[in-house]
Amino acid sequence: MEFAEVVRRRRMVRSYDSSRPVEPEIVTKLLEQAIRAPSAGFSQGWHFLVLDRAEHREPFWTATTESGQPADPWLTGMRSAPLLILALSDKEAYLDRYADADKGWTDRDEARWPVPYWDIDTGMASLLILLGAVDEGLAGCFFGVPPAAHPAVREALGIPERLRLVGVISLGYAAPDRKSPSLKRGRRALDEVVSYGRVR
Amino acid sequence: MEFAEVVRRRRMVRSYDSSRPVEPEIVTKLLEQAIRAPSAGFSQGWHFLVLDRAEHREPFWTATTESGQPADPWLTGMRSAPLLILALSDKEAYLDRYADADKGWTDRDEARWPVPYWDIDTGMASLLILLGAVDEGLAGCFFGVPPAAHPAVREALGIPERLRLVGVISLGYAAPDRKSPSLKRGRRALDEVVSYGRVR
Repeated sequence: MEFAEVVRRRRMVRSYDSSRPVEPEIVTKLLEQAIRAPSAGFSQGWHFLVLDRAEHREPFWTATTESGQPADPWLTGMRSAPLLILALSDKEAYLDRYADADKGWTDRDEARWPVPYWDIDTGMASLLILLGAVDEGLAGCFFGVPPAAHPAVREALGIPERLRLVGVISLGYAAPDRKSPSLKRGRRALDEVVSYGRVR
Repeated sequence: MEFAEVVRRRRMVRSYDSSRPVEPEIVTKLLEQAIRAPSAGFSQGWHFLVLDRAEHREPFWTATTESGQPADPWLTGMRSAPLLILALSDKEAYLDRYADADKGWTDRDEARWPVPYWDIDTGMASLLILLGAVDEGLAGCFFGVPPAAHPAVREALGIPERLRLVGVISLGYAAPDRKSPSLKRGRRALDEVVSYGRVR
């Protein structure tokens, strides 16, 4: 599909055909595109945890759902996704990379970093997965996990302290879904978010 | 161009044909694609400061270059870019959005956020600009500005405290450049950065 068309069509889909798994070769293709994301110093400090079997997704949903919480439409829809990819960032990989001779930040001081590029680069890789999904006729959603649930997710899926859960990408073939109520807010116009020369 | 081809071709280019500006309609098209990036709660907490005139780029380079610093090849190459777009994140827009009734985080407590989605979403929008540039036959680079230089950049370009400089996208028609020495590190193989079921 044309790039512009992929960008135009991409939207968050929160309900999937649970009977139709994502073909493993498509999963591989999406991951191969993900690792073409840019990264500071080519640090590539990311890890992708693929949950393509119900027995692996179940512990994720258990760890992120408060016990006794009634299933809301969001959760019911998202649980129908036959594939989850957890996007994890690896800050240490960046601090290591920039301690190399050609960068020279041997103090590994995080104050040298204006923003956490480990999280941003992992986010960029996640966007490539979302866009690649559209290109493959799939639907996807990117969502965050509340900090309070991170320890349980780590425990359930063997995620070491070194890796930070930036977000989760749900993927599958789309089922009819309700548009996000957030969209009622409307897209901000270009002249609201763009300045030329100086910030207005 | 096909999406997969855009992803494959994208690379950071650090030298541009300074005599060839980027057409204003292409700049607008890139920005229109940028604001199709996903954002948490459709917060769209971003701002893009376009420096398409030398008289606006000059203060940026002055603010980010140590006085007396000899021009190194990186700086010489980057200064040839006829267009810079500063990607700025607006955390307050996210805290405001999530204080709305449908989200209910009226305490505006940042500890509710596992990672700074304001920076990540702005990074995603930046990636759309980089990819869109490839689609338009342009070249681009994304780079960070050291925190020590942020006050001078704010002052020079009227950037309010509310906005954080996530990174800068340089754009233009490519001139021959030297590949980044970082690339010698090699791309990490899929099996190094992907796990199935549990993190290995």
